[in-house]
Amino acid sequence: MSASTTTPAAAAPAATDGPNEKNGANPVVTQVNPYGPHPSDYLSNVSGFQLIESTLREGEQFANAFFDTEKKIEIAKALDDFGVDYIELTSPAASEQSRKDCEAICKLGLKAKILTHIRCHMDDAKLAVATGVDGVDVVIGTSQFLRQYSHGKDMNYIAKSAVEVIEFVKSHGIEIRFSSEDSFRSDLVDLLNIYRTVDKIGVNRVGIADTVGCANPRQVYELVRTLKSIVSCDIECHFHNDTGCAIANAYTALEAGAKLIDVSVLGIGERNGITPLGGLMARMIAADRDYVLSKYKLHKLRELETLVAEAVQVNIPFNNPITGFCAFTHKAGIHAKAILANPSTYEILNPSDFGLTRYIHFANRLTGWNAIKSRVDQLNLNLTDDQCKEVTAKIKKLGDVRSLNIDDVDSIIRDYHQSVTTPALNPVDDADLPAIKKQKTEAATNGTNGASA
Amino acid sequence: MSASTTTPAAAAPAATDGPNEKNGANPVVTQVNPYGPHPSDYLSNVSGFQLIESTLREGEQFANAFFDTEKKIEIAKALDDFGVDYIELTSPAASEQSRKDCEAICKLGLKAKILTHIRCHMDDAKLAVATGVDGVDVVIGTSQFLRQYSHGKDMNYIAKSAVEVIEFVKSHGIEIRFSSEDSFRSDLVDLLNIYRTVDKIGVNRVGIADTVGCANPRQVYELVRTLKSIVSCDIECHFHNDTGCAIANAYTALEAGAKLIDVSVLGIGERNGITPLGGLMARMIAADRDYVLSKYKLHKLRELETLVAEAVQVNIPFNNPITGFCAFTHKAGIHAKAILANPSTYEILNPSDFGLTRYIHFANRLTGWNAIKSRVDQLNLNLTDDQCKEVTAKIKKLGDVRSLNIDDVDSIIRDYHQSVTTPALNPVDDADLPAIKKQKTEAATNGTNGASA
Repeated sequence: MSASTTTPAAAAPAATDGPNEKNGANPVVTQVNPYGPHPSDYLSNVSGFQLIESTLREGEQFANAFFDTEKKIEIAKALDDFGVDYIELTSPAASEQSRKDCEAICKLGLKAKILTHIRCHMDDAKLAVATGVDGVDVVIGTSQFLRQYSHGKDMNYIAKSAVEVIEFVKSHGIEIRFSSEDSFRSDLVDLLNIYRTVDKIGVNRVGIADTVGCANPRQVYELVRTLKSIVSCDIECHFHNDTGCAIANAYTALEAGAKLIDVSVLGIGERNGITPLGGLMARMIAADRDYVLSKYKLHKLRELETLVAEAVQVNIPFNNPITGFCAFTHKAGIHAKAILANPSTYEILNPSDFGLTRYIHFANRLTGWNAIKSRVDQLNLNLTDDQCKEVTAKIKKLGDVRSLNIDDVDSIIRDYHQSVTTPALNPVDDADLPAIKKQKTEAATNGTNGASA
Repeated sequence: MSASTTTPAAAAPAATDGPNEKNGANPVVTQVNPYGPHPSDYLSNVSGFQLIESTLREGEQFANAFFDTEKKIEIAKALDDFGVDYIELTSPAASEQSRKDCEAICKLGLKAKILTHIRCHMDDAKLAVATGVDGVDVVIGTSQFLRQYSHGKDMNYIAKSAVEVIEFVKSHGIEIRFSSEDSFRSDLVDLLNIYRTVDKIGVNRVGIADTVGCANPRQVYELVRTLKSIVSCDIECHFHNDTGCAIANAYTALEAGAKLIDVSVLGIGERNGITPLGGLMARMIAADRDYVLSKYKLHKLRELETLVAEAVQVNIPFNNPITGFCAFTHKAGIHAKAILANPSTYEILNPSDFGLTRYIHFANRLTGWNAIKSRVDQLNLNLTDDQCKEVTAKIKKLGDVRSLNIDDVDSIIRDYHQSVTTPALNPVDDADLPAIKKQKTEAATNGTNGASA
């Protein structure tokens, strides 16, 4: 990481698409980004969202997941420390140990509210309220698929049992959420009817679930905005990631007025899982950095992800948002040059917000003389710009032949430095390096030659 | 994979949000999904998009990437076989070998058109046309950030050099694309001016690039739709994935009228890369299965991703779209039950479209009796539903104590089967298994007890 440089102030303008940016902070960005949600976008909760962390419920449905009591408690404490608003646990009806674990976590006295997630069924509801949770998340399939192939009940039955379960949970003075399942493949009128019914009874939240991961952002915006006009309670959203839209759908749902998003660490859950906590943090900090930094301990993210990754025996994906090993690595010469001048040129996220640092990858054939010059300076060697361009050409030439590491580059730089500082030697034999002249010309024109967008 | 079952016909209704679904194919889905783009959405290219595959350009900017000539040719051939429309290569100005490799790939005679990606600069343009490419992608930074910290040129200079380069490339009778860089942080008026200018000269495509990965879907829709009203040429989009929206942004851009999307295998590129080929295939097949299947060899996807993953020394992420190891694994009892009845209940993608199979994960405490019953059938054992519920309770009880594997479950089933088929033995000692009665009751009511959305 020797070539890394971090300039928080310069990298600060992350809020390029926040609905209500603190203009004083970064007027330039506000000016050059006319597309974000406007202050007039009164529906938006982008600056007032909450997290329902479901690693211990949805996450337990991940193929590799088996959390014993001790591990569940360790994860719950880490999530609470990170600052999540709610922690959702597996139904106490799932198994006897699931019930005991639910009770144990409720007794921890965490700041986060504890929820459990049950079927719309009185047996489950009785078990749930007995565990001491702060709230119960009730779900039932409303799509034609699920009504036909899962529980086989019609909408009247669904409404009837929903009312019964909701009244029961409310009578115990704890929070209640009613969610449909597979909402995006449910009949719109059926959905709005059931949501209005439960809203009138007085649920705390209604939930929309993209159970199969089929939804796209504009559908999400339409459904959430429509629901917002029907109910007075909060709206929670749950997005599966089968078609790669779980983070974008969550963000768009907040723009449309949803307030709570279900997430799990690394997004673990059924199949490919749901909106990942880290990925949503990346999206939200780009929208409203101040709000996110005021609520969540982002510097604990890597630790949290490592804890869960080890518990379910997976590697953190190489391209994981924020914590992927190359999330802040800049390679092409044109990128490195600009990053060295101002990190905001090619970074919307500031690595220091997450306790991380950026890295300028200069040991490759796409490198530019600006990146090499910064390396020369780090090595405390004195070379002119022209000399830096010349040694850059040598490095790129070797980079064409094989993969380079930092030692390769440093030794080329040191050899070159010695050659130009030792009068007897000829600094460079042009006949021997036909590539150099062209490189020099190009380097001189734009200072780099790894084009990129 | 012994517990897997695939029902292509049943899983077929993947097109839940396609703009022009073949209604005959799946009327049900069309009916239960009222939110998708409508046929009236005349802007949409969701059913007419093309791919510009940039693994050999953007992908070469990935931290771990070093492709020698042989590997580049192997990847180019695999991409061509998969069916991508264009293959984009690193600028011949990046290095001497890059130039030679570009020439070599142009000589392969692939079906896909070969492009190279250069700075908006005559030196680069001359090198590019000399390589024999079918088209040149020109890019220049237009954001205030890049104009100030990268090339330091103003919009007049940009327009002037753009015209010169475009005229030069066109004079050689090959395709030309002009793209701005960091488009979402550029001034809207500057952008529209330069795009209209180059459109009038007659470029084949104009490109929008979310170079820093800051864009969100609704911004993308607005900018693309606005640009669509200004230019007559095609619109290409390039989305980085820093905030996890690259797939959703690409889909939304197509809805707004963009026609070409830049992708790379596994999304490799600068930092966390761009829209991944596989992830976009997942998104698009859910929108228009017939179009995607008619153009791309999806069953070659895993092979293609493995080729590139090995070349850049990364593991395929556990949650990678489609090819992640658990993408088609169903675990919670309520999911398994419905999947066994009809895969479409919890799958928007049909694994067989990708030459893959689904897996019902029944060896865990969240399992349900339906999943166990299907396993009992696979073992050719005869048990009644009540007996399946009873043995399921035994399995869940052990699953509470430790992680289970298939052998554990099979031996419990076989032991139980022997006990109930051997008259002398008592099939189950309730005193010894207090958990079972409750489980039986629940199992009887809803047939499963792993709630899930």
